[in-house]
Amino acid sequence: MILDSINAANDIKNIPEGELNELAQEIRDFLIQKISVNGGHLGSNLGAVELTMALHLAADLPEDKIVWDVGHQSYTHKILTGRKDEFDRLRKFGGISGFPKRRESNCDAFDTGHSSTSISAGLGLAKARDLAGDDYGIYAVIGDGALTGGMAYEALNNAADLETNYVIVLNDNNMSIAENVGGVSSYLQDIRTADAYRNFKMGLEDALNRIPGGVAVVDKLKKYKSSFKQLVVPGMFFEDMGITYLGPVDGHDIKAMVKVFKEARRYPKCVIVHVLTHKGKGYPPAERHPARFHGAEPFDVETGLPSVNRTKANYTDVFSTVVIKLGERNEKVCAITAAMPDGTGLKRFSRRFPERFFDVGIAEEHAVTFAAGLAAGGFIPIVAIYSSFLQRAYDQIIHDVCIQDLPVIFAIDRAGIVGSDGETHQGIFDLSFLSSIPNMTVMAPKNKWELSDMLKFAVKFGSPVAVRYPRGIAYDGLEEYRKPVIYGQSELIYEESQTVLMAVGSMVKTAEEVRMVLKNEYGMHVSLVNARFVKPIDGEMISYLAKQHDLIVTLEENVENGGFGEHVRAYADDNKLNVDVLVCALPDDYVEHGNVSILAHEVGIDCESIVKKIVDR
Amino acid sequence: MILDSINAANDIKNIPEGELNELAQEIRDFLIQKISVNGGHLGSNLGAVELTMALHLAADLPEDKIVWDVGHQSYTHKILTGRKDEFDRLRKFGGISGFPKRRESNCDAFDTGHSSTSISAGLGLAKARDLAGDDYGIYAVIGDGALTGGMAYEALNNAADLETNYVIVLNDNNMSIAENVGGVSSYLQDIRTADAYRNFKMGLEDALNRIPGGVAVVDKLKKYKSSFKQLVVPGMFFEDMGITYLGPVDGHDIKAMVKVFKEARRYPKCVIVHVLTHKGKGYPPAERHPARFHGAEPFDVETGLPSVNRTKANYTDVFSTVVIKLGERNEKVCAITAAMPDGTGLKRFSRRFPERFFDVGIAEEHAVTFAAGLAAGGFIPIVAIYSSFLQRAYDQIIHDVCIQDLPVIFAIDRAGIVGSDGETHQGIFDLSFLSSIPNMTVMAPKNKWELSDMLKFAVKFGSPVAVRYPRGIAYDGLEEYRKPVIYGQSELIYEESQTVLMAVGSMVKTAEEVRMVLKNEYGMHVSLVNARFVKPIDGEMISYLAKQHDLIVTLEENVENGGFGEHVRAYADDNKLNVDVLVCALPDDYVEHGNVSILAHEVGIDCESIVKKIVDR
Repeated sequence: MILDSINAANDIKNIPEGELNELAQEIRDFLIQKISVNGGHLGSNLGAVELTMALHLAADLPEDKIVWDVGHQSYTHKILTGRKDEFDRLRKFGGISGFPKRRESNCDAFDTGHSSTSISAGLGLAKARDLAGDDYGIYAVIGDGALTGGMAYEALNNAADLETNYVIVLNDNNMSIAENVGGVSSYLQDIRTADAYRNFKMGLEDALNRIPGGVAVVDKLKKYKSSFKQLVVPGMFFEDMGITYLGPVDGHDIKAMVKVFKEARRYPKCVIVHVLTHKGKGYPPAERHPARFHGAEPFDVETGLPSVNRTKANYTDVFSTVVIKLGERNEKVCAITAAMPDGTGLKRFSRRFPERFFDVGIAEEHAVTFAAGLAAGGFIPIVAIYSSFLQRAYDQIIHDVCIQDLPVIFAIDRAGIVGSDGETHQGIFDLSFLSSIPNMTVMAPKNKWELSDMLKFAVKFGSPVAVRYPRGIAYDGLEEYRKPVIYGQSELIYEESQTVLMAVGSMVKTAEEVRMVLKNEYGMHVSLVNARFVKPIDGEMISYLAKQHDLIVTLEENVENGGFGEHVRAYADDNKLNVDVLVCALPDDYVEHGNVSILAHEVGIDCESIVKKIVDR
Repeated sequence: MILDSINAANDIKNIPEGELNELAQEIRDFLIQKISVNGGHLGSNLGAVELTMALHLAADLPEDKIVWDVGHQSYTHKILTGRKDEFDRLRKFGGISGFPKRRESNCDAFDTGHSSTSISAGLGLAKARDLAGDDYGIYAVIGDGALTGGMAYEALNNAADLETNYVIVLNDNNMSIAENVGGVSSYLQDIRTADAYRNFKMGLEDALNRIPGGVAVVDKLKKYKSSFKQLVVPGMFFEDMGITYLGPVDGHDIKAMVKVFKEARRYPKCVIVHVLTHKGKGYPPAERHPARFHGAEPFDVETGLPSVNRTKANYTDVFSTVVIKLGERNEKVCAITAAMPDGTGLKRFSRRFPERFFDVGIAEEHAVTFAAGLAAGGFIPIVAIYSSFLQRAYDQIIHDVCIQDLPVIFAIDRAGIVGSDGETHQGIFDLSFLSSIPNMTVMAPKNKWELSDMLKFAVKFGSPVAVRYPRGIAYDGLEEYRKPVIYGQSELIYEESQTVLMAVGSMVKTAEEVRMVLKNEYGMHVSLVNARFVKPIDGEMISYLAKQHDLIVTLEENVENGGFGEHVRAYADDNKLNVDVLVCALPDDYVEHGNVSILAHEVGIDCESIVKKIVDR
């Protein structure tokens, strides 16, 4: 195996040129094998094998800096920088991350996870380099999907003023996670079918040179430099912004890429190298089903089918079904995704109601303000965005939705601990940042039926509502508890005395377990309340509970600062209730990657930890 | 006066064409007179007089919808829609807002305040119109500065797919508040000097047609349609995105604009009309000093000088001086603004250290991640962004700065109640959204010396730090209290017993007043603590205070949810301290425009309200 000789950064430079394609194949096989066992991002990594190899051949690590946008395509980079042997622990607790991490390797120049940050971060690194008087290379590798994100454009606009070298590699596979949307995507598509341009350029210059007087025209063209460039350069969109464009180049031709990367380093300004790659390249199931193999569960290499068949619906499935019913019952209901029709469960809605479905691209800020516009126009938009990505739209939620009190519904999937994607993807701040916003109502369902009930409530409510629910299997216990959802009212499930557990959403299930342990092992009398509303909290219920209980225990999958527990505590204090409040929430820290139940234990919100907290008081 | 006959929407349509320029002049005089008395946004409004008139002539209000980006240029729109007589109460409590407000008029289609939202909101309105089967006109009016904001680009990208009419008016005055930066700005500048293009287009076609074989070349060009368009259309940047470009048109020629606005309405797609205007047009002082007359204090019409001369420094001045000292002492210190070198006080730093100063344009998201890149490259960036605009970068603060624990300093001006700009500009959420973020340290100075001390502390600290300070005169009391700033430690100013006031930043001054009233009028014993740190809170001090006091009163200019008071309460509860906590913070609501002291009373954080809360307990 050639791969055996790759054990540290720059080892790839010792591989004879003739063996590079074989190495690429070995890396592909390695990736497919490891990801089929552990799960992970397959398609994007298979697409970027040669691109990464070419970068490592053109650059010197760790002196040169590579910033991987989003970062889920950095597996080959990890392999080429001495982390090959750690792939059995990829995305597992204590193992290597599925994203670049500065703490993992000095070859990881900047941590990523969310989309569209790389050009900004790379520009910062470039300015730091210049100020320090250095001249190493800086490469930002960004997908065409991530280019839809507004901050990528803010950064491009800013990078245009740079008078030193900075290389942006546009990894264009004509996809983000799903099919790309919007004007720039069409534009890139035009360039991809670039023969027309090339032929045109050659043809025109030839034609002009061949005809009498034509040379004068070429001269005239060259005088109007920018216009001339428009004629001969396919990347005029970037050139118009002041960024030098090179490409397109075949993203699976290592030699061609090394050449253009080295050429790109010679310009004393910002250069964009347009690389055409194929997502899932080399593994037919991933080429055919790019969305499924974007972030893959463990699968069978032979068939490409998941190793474990889910038998129960997850919350996304439930949302997917309910949102169609809502659309059927009310023609004002619209649905919006930011480039994740599959992940959010909106794919079926998009087929059923194509005219009321909007995929705005990776553009959370726009998604929310666009929704506000729809609402101002009399519609009821449901914006489905993962918890950690919704952080992007915090201002738009305040400024465009809530100040005007517009009926926008936020369907927030992946709230709480998400597991193997790690700290950038944990949805552990939403209860805090949403409940600080006036006019916002924040809810979380205890089980799958309640998700449905809450969404129905939200459609009728007429003001901004957020419903947050976790990744994974939808809880189907407590089916018999289905009190109608009424604004601001919690649900008393078991009424005893002494201690009451007041749990938010996913923590109701944990609270049931805690309650049984407290009763059976400690002989305690324990009530259980399903909070339902995090904002507003149910003050009446809290006052009622305070009369017959000594202790209220709040449980939530969110940081303590600004979360549910603090609000309950504030209410109890303000109303001088004679009851103690014990807050069980996440500590003031980030949560790493790993199995959800391991992480829950690590951060102290599993049954065992909570029981201990209550008993040790 | 022609203006006398303008009393409701569409009245302008009864004005004979020959009198429109006179009306424009009357509106200008009216604006100058009213703003000279009340203060307000002068330059942008003077620049948009004819543009607004032309829009009102071309459109039918309120059926057609106009979304004003940022909205501070909407004064002429307010005059033309029946609000002329309310200008004496402009920006005053209970009077009309300086921004569009749907609650003020059915001609205000969407509330704005922050930059770059209009294209998104207008696109939402357009989709709502289409779904409802209507066909009224929708206009988003956006400045070239606001076009730097990423979400404008996200929206343009999305709007390219629209197959019905939507008109974006690009109000290009080659400025945002300060001089514009970046690639797109240069690009627009090229178009502004558009004669070159026009001559070129004519010249080339002529030249080609005149030479033998040239006609064939023209044909060849036309075959490659998009390339041909690049030759003849100046707005290729927009055309590349799939947006039809019309212009440039003279933004002070009403007739020309009406014509192009009407033409723009005929395309079944998104059209951008490029209008060239002159900021401050018609008032020489505003033309000469665009930054000063952006948001102007009351001024003398004759001289253009402020009516009231400030004798005391405001916090921005203090920051401005300190940041230069920091730059002198440490060559790693850099400063970043998002298009507000004047407003943030960084202008002087930019002159002193041009190479370490970065104006990234209206691009808060990029500003923060760019800073993270600088920090990862070994520098110490100070990002100066107003509190309400920093909401835009909440995710970048978490994802790019704090997860990596990078030493980025946030200098947050306009924190707390800002006054006449109103609800979109109040900085009342920062303590909540910042203190929910792990690895973030949040501070607020009691007076001008402490702002200086905190910034010095922050530069040495090595982790993310936010220092928030209010708009207006810097407090210069309590000069003798200048204990060194130590991480996590508050400052005990007056130590008595019974009740302790624990105040954040600007509220220390209020707390002093409260203390004197409580002592003198109610004979109470009152201690005073300057919190200094909102995150982490000073638990040791709280424990100490709890021993000798019955009541801790927290005071902050921030919403209660997730704010300082909740954290103090949590600490007291968790540590079972025998003390009551009374939280004085802003209610769960938006704060309107008006005089700061009136607003403070309205929301219950002035001296009188706080004394009442304490005494009534």
